[in-house]
Amino acid sequence: MAHLLAILEYDGTEFQGFQTQSNGRTVQQELERALTEFLPAPERVGGRVKLVGGGRTDAGVHARGQSASFQLDWTRDLETLQRALNAKLPTDIFVHRIVSVPPDFSARYSALSREYEYRVWNQPERSVFHCRYAHWVAQPLDVSAMQTAASWLRGKRDYGAFGSAPDGRSTVREIMRASVERCGNEICFTFEANAFLYRMVRRMVGTLLLVGRGVIPADEMTAVIERKRRGGFSAPPQGLTLLRINYPLELGAERIR
Amino acid sequence: MAHLLAILEYDGTEFQGFQTQSNGRTVQQELERALTEFLPAPERVGGRVKLVGGGRTDAGVHARGQSASFQLDWTRDLETLQRALNAKLPTDIFVHRIVSVPPDFSARYSALSREYEYRVWNQPERSVFHCRYAHWVAQPLDVSAMQTAASWLRGKRDYGAFGSAPDGRSTVREIMRASVERCGNEICFTFEANAFLYRMVRRMVGTLLLVGRGVIPADEMTAVIERKRRGGFSAPPQGLTLLRINYPLELGAERIR
Repeated sequence: MAHLLAILEYDGTEFQGFQTQSNGRTVQQELERALTEFLPAPERVGGRVKLVGGGRTDAGVHARGQSASFQLDWTRDLETLQRALNAKLPTDIFVHRIVSVPPDFSARYSALSREYEYRVWNQPERSVFHCRYAHWVAQPLDVSAMQTAASWLRGKRDYGAFGSAPDGRSTVREIMRASVERCGNEICFTFEANAFLYRMVRRMVGTLLLVGRGVIPADEMTAVIERKRRGGFSAPPQGLTLLRINYPLELGAERIR
Repeated sequence: MAHLLAILEYDGTEFQGFQTQSNGRTVQQELERALTEFLPAPERVGGRVKLVGGGRTDAGVHARGQSASFQLDWTRDLETLQRALNAKLPTDIFVHRIVSVPPDFSARYSALSREYEYRVWNQPERSVFHCRYAHWVAQPLDVSAMQTAASWLRGKRDYGAFGSAPDGRSTVREIMRASVERCGNEICFTFEANAFLYRMVRRMVGTLLLVGRGVIPADEMTAVIERKRRGGFSAPPQGLTLLRINYPLELGAERIR
């Protein structure tokens, strides 16, 4: 059996998230269905290729560099597998690369960090061309205040104010980067952390947007982190994109990105 | 009655084109339905506001600056009408401006010229984020050859090789501009003409793409125009956007664009 890692992108609009669940179309389901077609004929009926996803994305959230590890009985080259797999996938998923990984590798547990981007269309009028990949905020936003507030979102500490962990497990995470920039008509938030809590990026953005609108002063960000003051709600999913997952692996010339 | 002109954008993916037809959702239908809600109550039942569109867009074709003229019994300011109308429209249509026009003005017949853009995603691999607004061409394209070929698409002449007119009417049109440029990973075709024949932009692009792939030599473009040589098929609709319609009108500080 070959141990493999796929790096892929998808438009999350028509998915109920990455992870398979009881109802609704998911990215994992589409990938597993397509990969099952590569099993030898006798195993195909009832057989299934099982994937492990590198990062969580909820319903409506996009990915440019999601990763998924799986095992497959495949002896030909991996470019052929990538091309054949893409031919079997719907137009809203595309696999960029498939690489070999060690047998003990897991897309989820071997990851060093995850990077997410959140985009806000910050114009008085909405745009039909941006509403699919950005959250519309009509009011002017104070980018400099949001940058000051984001500078508090650094380092290893309890970020339970912004999300939950399954089964009451630890809500300590390490944030390596939290930046806010204006790019033309959009405002772009970028976050890198070892791992994120459930809805953490969208709740950090929701809170930063309240800072940008002057509802929360930038220097009260610590009070929000320490749960002495209430933060913002989750920003809507369509603005969020999983950019990439970083691994401690050198594969060929480049690091998996 | 106020004589009005709306400048609007729409994502054409979910529409069977601009113009109302017997089946399928159209932009005109959505606009007329929303405008009918502004009629006085007794007229609303069975009554209807009739629109004239400035430019044709087929199923799947987008618009950034479509225009539509109509009459409405409206005495308040036009910004209020624009805001109220947008609140009644679906998320894939947005009205940018509504301006007053003379009683004899028609969005269609008063137009001086129309500008369209066609975008090609020219990369070996497809992109889930570009497939909605660009046509994917995997092979390398010779931009310089396409520019030479496009330089023949100028001036007033018979362009019947690229499209048809209703009821066998004249296929003479005047092209003011036909340009081809590489913008990052995309190739962008821009056309301006007094008016376009049915499918004309997509068939010109389909032909230029054959030039770009080396199937038709650039200097045989005149032979294609004169129907001595066969051109290309229609390029698919999702790459096409109606950019703007130009009128001989000064309205307020700026020309309607």
